[in-house]
Amino acid sequence: MLDAGLICHLGVVARGVPMVVPTGYGRIGDTLYLHGSTGATSLRAGGGGGEVCVTVTHLDGIVLARSAFHHSVNYRSAMVYGTPRLVTDPDEHLAGLRAITEQLAPGQWDAVRPPTRKELAATAVLALSLAEASVKIRQGPPIDDEEDYGLPIWAGVLPLRTTWGEPEPDPALTADLPVPGHIASRNITIG
Amino acid sequence: MLDAGLICHLGVVARGVPMVVPTGYGRIGDTLYLHGSTGATSLRAGGGGGEVCVTVTHLDGIVLARSAFHHSVNYRSAMVYGTPRLVTDPDEHLAGLRAITEQLAPGQWDAVRPPTRKELAATAVLALSLAEASVKIRQGPPIDDEEDYGLPIWAGVLPLRTTWGEPEPDPALTADLPVPGHIASRNITIG
Repeated sequence: MLDAGLICHLGVVARGVPMVVPTGYGRIGDTLYLHGSTGATSLRAGGGGGEVCVTVTHLDGIVLARSAFHHSVNYRSAMVYGTPRLVTDPDEHLAGLRAITEQLAPGQWDAVRPPTRKELAATAVLALSLAEASVKIRQGPPIDDEEDYGLPIWAGVLPLRTTWGEPEPDPALTADLPVPGHIASRNITIG
Repeated sequence: MLDAGLICHLGVVARGVPMVVPTGYGRIGDTLYLHGSTGATSLRAGGGGGEVCVTVTHLDGIVLARSAFHHSVNYRSAMVYGTPRLVTDPDEHLAGLRAITEQLAPGQWDAVRPPTRKELAATAVLALSLAEASVKIRQGPPIDDEEDYGLPIWAGVLPLRTTWGEPEPDPALTADLPVPGHIASRNITIG
């Protein structure tokens, strides 16, 4: 479920108030990696010893029931809870950043200019154990009350599909470079 | 941005720990409505006088830069902060539920069996003012360091498209009912 996602929603408590921020992530084994500017409020709160909640959600469809009450969505969601650790080891820091980039764009890390020492210093990486995680899934047709199944009301699921569009080259490309295979060949359904 | 979304991520603090839950929502004027089982932890925490953060995110594409450091995503995100009010007025309670259902499936509320008194009693509705909200948007091609533009590395955006699939009738439909127009005619790109 985590590997099929692109972004997560990171929940932190900053000055007593919850804050939910969409952000990238990556996974290596049983560890989730998050990153951000070293000055970002969400990372300061997350890296300062406070607990966080990271939620990755795939929305698969709208569940249309015969009664308003039984409307729902089909989805898959993973929530990871814990107190993240600020990564200080240089190798793990680099590996975490690589995992985050590869989660968004597999094959991209080795195709582009690697980070400089200055760029690495400007990027905080947090590591979060997957030990405390929960998964919620709802799939399939609506579940209506028994007495409602005879009503002349259409019921079913309206599925959602997420797909890649055609790659859009940067207008600032200085040469007529072809779209690399790892990007061009990604034209499949996500999730 | 809120009207174009389907689900939000609701952040609450429950027993001192942040919790991020995907859930439905609806908007009427300057008020956002959320609902849930009267027993749900997230709603108890949200309705018990604590602040919440509601985030709606549209992920529009992956931004592929010439350097690992400048990778990003194109997105539109709205965050609403505040202390929600538990809705007790019966008319507002019903209007809130209607807005939440219509957000997921416009036209559906009037097509299905309305909620019974018992169903209404089992569903808590929270109202959250849109007074305190912020919006973040990132669009367009990558922004690379000036000295990297000459590198022979492809750069650009890989767009994400979210579309509706074909409606899937409930196998338990007791009659050969056609897909209603408000569902069948929804075959357009989302967001």
